[in-house]
Amino acid sequence: MAEIHSDTIETAGALAQRSEWKDGGWCPIERTIDLVGTRSAMILIREFFFGARRFDDLVRRTGLTEAMASRRLAQMVSDGLLERRPYQEPGQRTRNEYVLTDLGRHLFPVVAALIQFGNSLAEDRGQGIELTHDQCGAPIEPAVHCAEGHDVPLEETVARLAGR
Amino acid sequence: MAEIHSDTIETAGALAQRSEWKDGGWCPIERTIDLVGTRSAMILIREFFFGARRFDDLVRRTGLTEAMASRRLAQMVSDGLLERRPYQEPGQRTRNEYVLTDLGRHLFPVVAALIQFGNSLAEDRGQGIELTHDQCGAPIEPAVHCAEGHDVPLEETVARLAGR
Repeated sequence: MAEIHSDTIETAGALAQRSEWKDGGWCPIERTIDLVGTRSAMILIREFFFGARRFDDLVRRTGLTEAMASRRLAQMVSDGLLERRPYQEPGQRTRNEYVLTDLGRHLFPVVAALIQFGNSLAEDRGQGIELTHDQCGAPIEPAVHCAEGHDVPLEETVARLAGR
Repeated sequence: MAEIHSDTIETAGALAQRSEWKDGGWCPIERTIDLVGTRSAMILIREFFFGARRFDDLVRRTGLTEAMASRRLAQMVSDGLLERRPYQEPGQRTRNEYVLTDLGRHLFPVVAALIQFGNSLAEDRGQGIELTHDQCGAPIEPAVHCAEGHDVPLEETVARLAGR
């Protein structure tokens, strides 16, 4: 049966036989989803990227219940995305705030891509978040780049399994 | 209270007063999550990007039940991410296959970012998916770029609400 050309990622190596196996644990998308694949985790992550640190702010900004926010934050600390830091306001007891770890900050391309895809869904309504580069003022673009600096469209992308 | 410097996106305009409002509908991340924010939707999307089109392949590759796969595919057609196309094998009845629409293909930066973040979670195990640019052979990088071609780190990013 002839394969119809389509604009997809070209698979190479073991990944080219994708139809022939189904064992788990190989997929980095699933690993990411295990950490941040819920609405509540992602809207907390959003607020961390917009500078929130404190439990009360996170609850108010996300609209999550305190119980849900606590549970997600504890999980994200345990997954290494956040770390707790004690702080103390004058006359108050010591509390913890939360900051993104280096691993958490590595979610930036995910957050940027989610924002830009969501913008495209509401383009007709002019709603969304504009991201710009503060050094040059240019808009941030929803594109994929290689180490040589080329824009890489979907159909020029090759995927291989690492480590097997 | 002095704001501690942190590596976050700088918010500007109405977004700088993020703590003062919580009305819904403004957030493009939430819009994206509404469409593809479940594990089952994302692993179907993964297989479309790796070239699957047919229901049986999608079910086998994802391990989803037929009922779940049907439901998600119907939703993704209705959301405009996929379109149905009839095909016919010799001697068989006409069936539908599914292909990504232009909107669906615009998820490429999301898919690439999820893959690359997931790779970083399993770096020590050498597992993951290597993405390369087939025109030059260079690896695809998990970076955010502006229209001027600069790599934009998190702390050089400014976010503003569009349309208000």
